[in-house]
Amino acid sequence: MNTATRQEHDLIGYRDVPADAYYGIQTLRAFENFTVSGVRLHQFSTFVRALATVKKAAAIANNKVDVLDERIKDAIVAACDDVIDNKYHDQFIVDMFQGGAGTSTNMNANEVIANRALEILGYQKGDYQHVHPNNNVNLSQSTNDVYPTAMKVALDDYCTRLLQKMKVLHDSFINKSIELADELKMGRTHLQDAVPMTAGQEFNAFATMIKKEMARIESSRVLFHEINMGGTAIGTGLNAPVGYSELCAQTLEELTGRPYYIAEDLIEATQDTSPYVALSGNLRLLAARLSKIANDLRLQTSGPRAGLAQYRLPEMQPGSSIMPGKVNPVIPEVVNQACFHVMGVDNAIAMASESGQLQLNVFEPVMAFNLFTGMSMLSNVCEVFATRCIDGLMMNNEACRVEVFNNIGLVTALNPHLGYESSSYVAKKAQETGGSVYDIVLGEKLMNKETLDFVLSPANMVYPKVKLMP
Amino acid sequence: MNTATRQEHDLIGYRDVPADAYYGIQTLRAFENFTVSGVRLHQFSTFVRALATVKKAAAIANNKVDVLDERIKDAIVAACDDVIDNKYHDQFIVDMFQGGAGTSTNMNANEVIANRALEILGYQKGDYQHVHPNNNVNLSQSTNDVYPTAMKVALDDYCTRLLQKMKVLHDSFINKSIELADELKMGRTHLQDAVPMTAGQEFNAFATMIKKEMARIESSRVLFHEINMGGTAIGTGLNAPVGYSELCAQTLEELTGRPYYIAEDLIEATQDTSPYVALSGNLRLLAARLSKIANDLRLQTSGPRAGLAQYRLPEMQPGSSIMPGKVNPVIPEVVNQACFHVMGVDNAIAMASESGQLQLNVFEPVMAFNLFTGMSMLSNVCEVFATRCIDGLMMNNEACRVEVFNNIGLVTALNPHLGYESSSYVAKKAQETGGSVYDIVLGEKLMNKETLDFVLSPANMVYPKVKLMP
Amino acid sequence: MNTATRQEHDLIGYRDVPADAYYGIQTLRAFENFTVSGVRLHQFSTFVRALATVKKAAAIANNKVDVLDERIKDAIVAACDDVIDNKYHDQFIVDMFQGGAGTSTNMNANEVIANRALEILGYQKGDYQHVHPNNNVNLSQSTNDVYPTAMKVALDDYCTRLLQKMKVLHDSFINKSIELADELKMGRTHLQDAVPMTAGQEFNAFATMIKKEMARIESSRVLFHEINMGGTAIGTGLNAPVGYSELCAQTLEELTGRPYYIAEDLIEATQDTSPYVALSGNLRLLAARLSKIANDLRLQTSGPRAGLAQYRLPEMQPGSSIMPGKVNPVIPEVVNQACFHVMGVDNAIAMASESGQLQLNVFEPVMAFNLFTGMSMLSNVCEVFATRCIDGLMMNNEACRVEVFNNIGLVTALNPHLGYESSSYVAKKAQETGGSVYDIVLGEKLMNKETLDFVLSPANMVYPKVKLMP
Amino acid sequence: MNTATRQEHDLIGYRDVPADAYYGIQTLRAFENFTVSGVRLHQFSTFVRALATVKKAAAIANNKVDVLDERIKDAIVAACDDVIDNKYHDQFIVDMFQGGAGTSTNMNANEVIANRALEILGYQKGDYQHVHPNNNVNLSQSTNDVYPTAMKVALDDYCTRLLQKMKVLHDSFINKSIELADELKMGRTHLQDAVPMTAGQEFNAFATMIKKEMARIESSRVLFHEINMGGTAIGTGLNAPVGYSELCAQTLEELTGRPYYIAEDLIEATQDTSPYVALSGNLRLLAARLSKIANDLRLQTSGPRAGLAQYRLPEMQPGSSIMPGKVNPVIPEVVNQACFHVMGVDNAIAMASESGQLQLNVFEPVMAFNLFTGMSMLSNVCEVFATRCIDGLMMNNEACRVEVFNNIGLVTALNPHLGYESSSYVAKKAQETGGSVYDIVLGEKLMNKETLDFVLSPANMVYPKVKLMP
Repeated sequence: MNTATRQEHDLIGYRDVPADAYYGIQTLRAFENFTVSGVRLHQFSTFVRALATVKKAAAIANNKVDVLDERIKDAIVAACDDVIDNKYHDQFIVDMFQGGAGTSTNMNANEVIANRALEILGYQKGDYQHVHPNNNVNLSQSTNDVYPTAMKVALDDYCTRLLQKMKVLHDSFINKSIELADELKMGRTHLQDAVPMTAGQEFNAFATMIKKEMARIESSRVLFHEINMGGTAIGTGLNAPVGYSELCAQTLEELTGRPYYIAEDLIEATQDTSPYVALSGNLRLLAARLSKIANDLRLQTSGPRAGLAQYRLPEMQPGSSIMPGKVNPVIPEVVNQACFHVMGVDNAIAMASESGQLQLNVFEPVMAFNLFTGMSMLSNVCEVFATRCIDGLMMNNEACRVEVFNNIGLVTALNPHLGYESSSYVAKKAQETGGSVYDIVLGEKLMNKETLDFVLSPANMVYPKVKLMP
Repeated sequence: MNTATRQEHDLIGYRDVPADAYYGIQTLRAFENFTVSGVRLHQFSTFVRALATVKKAAAIANNKVDVLDERIKDAIVAACDDVIDNKYHDQFIVDMFQGGAGTSTNMNANEVIANRALEILGYQKGDYQHVHPNNNVNLSQSTNDVYPTAMKVALDDYCTRLLQKMKVLHDSFINKSIELADELKMGRTHLQDAVPMTAGQEFNAFATMIKKEMARIESSRVLFHEINMGGTAIGTGLNAPVGYSELCAQTLEELTGRPYYIAEDLIEATQDTSPYVALSGNLRLLAARLSKIANDLRLQTSGPRAGLAQYRLPEMQPGSSIMPGKVNPVIPEVVNQACFHVMGVDNAIAMASESGQLQLNVFEPVMAFNLFTGMSMLSNVCEVFATRCIDGLMMNNEACRVEVFNNIGLVTALNPHLGYESSSYVAKKAQETGGSVYDIVLGEKLMNKETLDFVLSPANMVYPKVKLMP
Repeated sequence: MNTATRQEHDLIGYRDVPADAYYGIQTLRAFENFTVSGVRLHQFSTFVRALATVKKAAAIANNKVDVLDERIKDAIVAACDDVIDNKYHDQFIVDMFQGGAGTSTNMNANEVIANRALEILGYQKGDYQHVHPNNNVNLSQSTNDVYPTAMKVALDDYCTRLLQKMKVLHDSFINKSIELADELKMGRTHLQDAVPMTAGQEFNAFATMIKKEMARIESSRVLFHEINMGGTAIGTGLNAPVGYSELCAQTLEELTGRPYYIAEDLIEATQDTSPYVALSGNLRLLAARLSKIANDLRLQTSGPRAGLAQYRLPEMQPGSSIMPGKVNPVIPEVVNQACFHVMGVDNAIAMASESGQLQLNVFEPVMAFNLFTGMSMLSNVCEVFATRCIDGLMMNNEACRVEVFNNIGLVTALNPHLGYESSSYVAKKAQETGGSVYDIVLGEKLMNKETLDFVLSPANMVYPKVKLMP
Repeated sequence: MNTATRQEHDLIGYRDVPADAYYGIQTLRAFENFTVSGVRLHQFSTFVRALATVKKAAAIANNKVDVLDERIKDAIVAACDDVIDNKYHDQFIVDMFQGGAGTSTNMNANEVIANRALEILGYQKGDYQHVHPNNNVNLSQSTNDVYPTAMKVALDDYCTRLLQKMKVLHDSFINKSIELADELKMGRTHLQDAVPMTAGQEFNAFATMIKKEMARIESSRVLFHEINMGGTAIGTGLNAPVGYSELCAQTLEELTGRPYYIAEDLIEATQDTSPYVALSGNLRLLAARLSKIANDLRLQTSGPRAGLAQYRLPEMQPGSSIMPGKVNPVIPEVVNQACFHVMGVDNAIAMASESGQLQLNVFEPVMAFNLFTGMSMLSNVCEVFATRCIDGLMMNNEACRVEVFNNIGLVTALNPHLGYESSSYVAKKAQETGGSVYDIVLGEKLMNKETLDFVLSPANMVYPKVKLMP
């Protein structure tokens, strides 16, 4: 008679595992031990695929240095390919929040791959003398080199997606900047009227911000190509055959197209979480920028009547359950919140990094969780921001133009002609009388009309470096 | 002919909604707009129930002040009861990360409740002239009073669970403290040997920490009883009938057993997110304490042979994929990580609070998300810590005892008898020779044996205030 | 022949100390070891006085339990009184950033007090057989009880000053609220026009915020009355005579007028830094509130012509080196920055708290430094904010009033009369035509003039709960 | 008759300034307005010199584009040279915490330089028609380009010093790593015994960490070479003559030897604070690393008898006021605290960056303050750490060696020979019996002696990749 379970054993003792489970006893224990976040490994399929990719590279490298039999290697590789092909992900059941520095994640992968390989070879699940989770799938490996390497492979994938979405947003800003290239508006410093500019310049600056941050994210990726495969437990490389490290890197490069290389100081590399903190720092910067842009847009779309009302956002949904007709800047607001979240968890990552001890930082899982979710959120909001907000943004051109020519800030352009003190006098008089700078300057005969018209021409004020005084 | 959809309209226009959906057009729009975290309202059933509870209280209050018909009120109340009874939660589909200050959450509730009420009354879903999401379910309400009130009701529930789990952990520490009441060990400051203590004192201190934090969490709850129902949009109470506010609070008190009251300054209350930051600050403190305890246990279970090895944790799972026989302190490690997470997101909450503008803080959703998930994690780790770690912890009693009597730190007890400088001399000699304080003091005839035995008796060193010198 | 130095010795060896220095060898070593921040103890005179106060209390308590000679006690007390009287503060030379958990601070105090006491008794400085820094001044004490107790005494003083300055700011807001009690303005949510309110309500809400935070700061103070004097090194109380603890608390109460009491669990109390984190959390909340208020004012004083221009701040200084006539909101801006600083260092304090190990948290100095400087900054900005900004703030009353009656947001008040959908129609029409809600409602005969006038009366919109529909 | 004051006036009105003051009315107002931190500009002499350097470059560039008279230019340059030569720094009296985005700092520089230039030219101080703070010293400039450019010049100087001190620490680690190159000790993961390594490897890893962080700091510097001189108020370059920008950058390069260039998008550059956040993020990483190293050393010097006691730190000062003979790791402890501080203020900087609005981030002063103080602290602790801690560190070699050969962790090296399960058996038996792995393996005849001796040879365990099995 068949039973619904199979028995497995480990260092601690014996346990029954569901007969059809690809995971094994260590996964089961971890599943029971870590009831913390409720968010499981399989919710991060990019990471699960990365784990399988690393396992595959290790199997190939092991075979090349003659410690892994061709037949077993082939089965392991085939099992890894299944996982890379998004199969058996439901077998990755461990909570992302886990103690043990990711050992449970590594063992979950080892067990699923071993059992799938057994199946491929025609054996029963659990029949580990043929393909063993530790002796074969994990051969020449340690959680301490596999887990961070898989994190790095996955983070690279997350970077790819994030950069795509940032590009979408960047292009959206560029397009808007072209659309509004010649539209005048007041530039502001300290929220106070400063000097004129164009809306095109404003949106172009937003595009520049995203571009600078894209470069920074790109620069983070480079950090992920230094890996520590073959360092094993603490970086001394105990149990890793000669040549294995380099073959791992080379195979991983072949599988992914990315230039992996082995860290020079494997002791340091094994305990090094600085690439995660560096990436998180760059995500934080992106978040600070996005939040700033969202703030600027919320501010400049304030109104409709008692606000700045320089721009109008596309209406995405009714804004209020009580105030009829109200439409709120819901997209910028959700951008802000995703950004606050990313800036917050950045502290969790930094704290986890600082808390590493001796030859290993055991707190990588909380870093992985927050980097993966944070990057996913940022990718999402970049896209939403572009497609549901920026693309449809409109300008109240005429009102903005009027505001420029009616503004006291124009006086700054007179500074080189009148000096700081006469200009201050004009400004003060305009403020007191409500009059225009133009009229006051002419009225007080401070400049002749021709020069004044030249100085206050939009071209001179907004692109002043084109030419100087005639 | 039946179709699979029904048409609904709002301020923005028309949309088709699945015919069997209880949610409506505004929920649909929000669902599409906020593809940010992938974490939906229904994953926070405590919050969904709290929303229904608030809606129920509002309906009853509206009825009492004669603005809501008995029949409609009854239908709304019945619909709310269904939701409170965990029905229709799958209809709460909006992402927790949302712009609009929770308007989409409120409208999701309004629409589900309206459609369920329509159904109860025998009408078709979407037939809003009979029961309207805004005019009836949201009557006298605004997102700006409903959302924070529901958050507060839910947070109170989260506090209840957290306090239960903290109590479990507290009791676990107390039990361990009783079990190890008389076991001597070295107390340490600066990680350096200091003076003797008992293991009971150490675990009792852990219990005291949890107890102090329980009191702090309790004190946060009080803040959640001040609500702003009836303040409506900005706290002026526009559209809220006289008496409605107080009836809301009173009804909510009847429904929940908690002493709700209306804020004195509703303008301030509407924009006030300080209760969330205050709670988050207290969660952070709890996290800092738990993390500290986890650190102490990881440190004192270090070994087995090249560590302090004062305590042994129960073995929960094999510790390493490569190092046979290794067992790691996986439970304390996951406690640490949950704590780092909570300490990190605390910054997101504070930043969101600081960023509120004018009459409303629109960033409550990111606060709700992080408080709910953070409290859930802390509850979970308190339980896991107690049941899978502390309860089964064992002490290496004899080794600890030997360490005490072999320790140079004993010299401190001689201070009142020999003075700081002679005691320093003894300490230095012990350090240089490797000898024991006891032998050196006798050998140098600094004290007689009887006095020395008394001074260095465990009772005198560990509970020194019992009596002074004979 | 006199020399300019005297020789002292300690555990480590011999050193020359300036002959006229009141500090001794341990202070000298610490001065040399900790060249970190350049900020010395004497820059925190409140703390130096608190140290002397604690030392005085300990001396009196020691005398009462008969372990300290009357004559020496009197000399120590007199020396402490000198320091309390702000004398010899220049002798407190150690950097505030120091290792050793404040031992160097404690020894700096012990040495200065011992040498001053020697002087009072007619001995030479350094002649420690008569009054010894450790054996007499530090009798029955440890850095681990003295340093936190002195921190608590000092923090209480800082709270007193902070609360005074918060009161100044609170009163300033109240006065402004009275001055502008009846001035209408648009309330805003999401930075979008919402419903009317008065400026008085806005400033009253600011006052409420400060009042709530004053209560929270007050509640932090209570935490500082639990002290651990007599716990000595780790809380077991080794070397502290029976009765000494309680006498310390009692004497400290007599000296300061504050209700000090000894912690029940001295082991926990010795390693407990939660009062500092709790206070810091409350300072952070105050900072978040102040920053929010500063933001609101900067926003509502934006202009003068292309901004909201609802309020005008008093002009404190020219705003620009290049833009003549520009005046910036410099006071709110410096408030923001002090708040960011406090919110930032709050993380340093939390991190330091989490990092405590075993029987002591050795990182109290960085907490002390940041609490003292943060509270000082917050006190200063409260005063500056009140006296240099709020007191002289003016409103552009008429423009604000016009904005209200011209606003689409008025439509909300029609909601109970027309329903959400008709009201939405009116809002949409107003938005499209630029017309007023009032005219549209009358034009479309949706309500009669009398009711409409009533509904849109300021009294009904701004204090709607006064009465309902006629 | 001479008076002690001179009268000056500005936009706001008239004020008396001390007759001998080089600063003027705007400095005086700012001094009075910003009583916040008590930390004045002159305490940051690097920054003051950087301001003068920028002013000098601007004067030279202005002269080259023919808007500044040779004679006045020469006087301004001479005045700047005085400030660069550390003269008149006491005239920089404004608080570092200031509103106005640094306008007061800029005006303080403008006024001091103008008055010193007047003096050089033989005029009276305050006689601004000859050399005017705004019209001449600030010519073609705005605070919004001068302040950030001066910050960048100063930060570069701070980087230089920090990198020097990091190099000192790096070399100290390298030296220690050479000294202890062959000394065996247990490597630890999860604080549990893992596999053997050498102390040389451990210290070499510390050196690698510092080296990696040096590279990161270097990479931050590059960001400081993009400047926005000539962007003036908002980046449009209003009032800056053609060619001036580039001449500024070129002159600054000549004066400093650093490759300055003008930002491509001056609108973006004017509001860009990302270089500060990026630097701060790298300082945070350095802090996290230093703190980790300090933690490792505190842990491994724990004892002397009830700790790990692997290393001994040089004794810098007596450790306790009550415990004779105690010596604490005071240097690592102060390193930790400086690191917590830097990691904390990093949040203030990020928050200030996120809070920038529209065309300018007005919160640069709080960033400058915290970067300057943080870098100074990190520089100081690097030096103190090296010279007062690492250089004199000693190892308890023999005890460490014994610990290795007595350790169960050796079993990992048997894994490739015995397989994971037999190895686990050996480990478990060792744990239960207290026996050695070596004896058990031989006793159970699991391997022959020759192979076992080879496998467990230090060379094979610690540098296993040298060769595989014979």
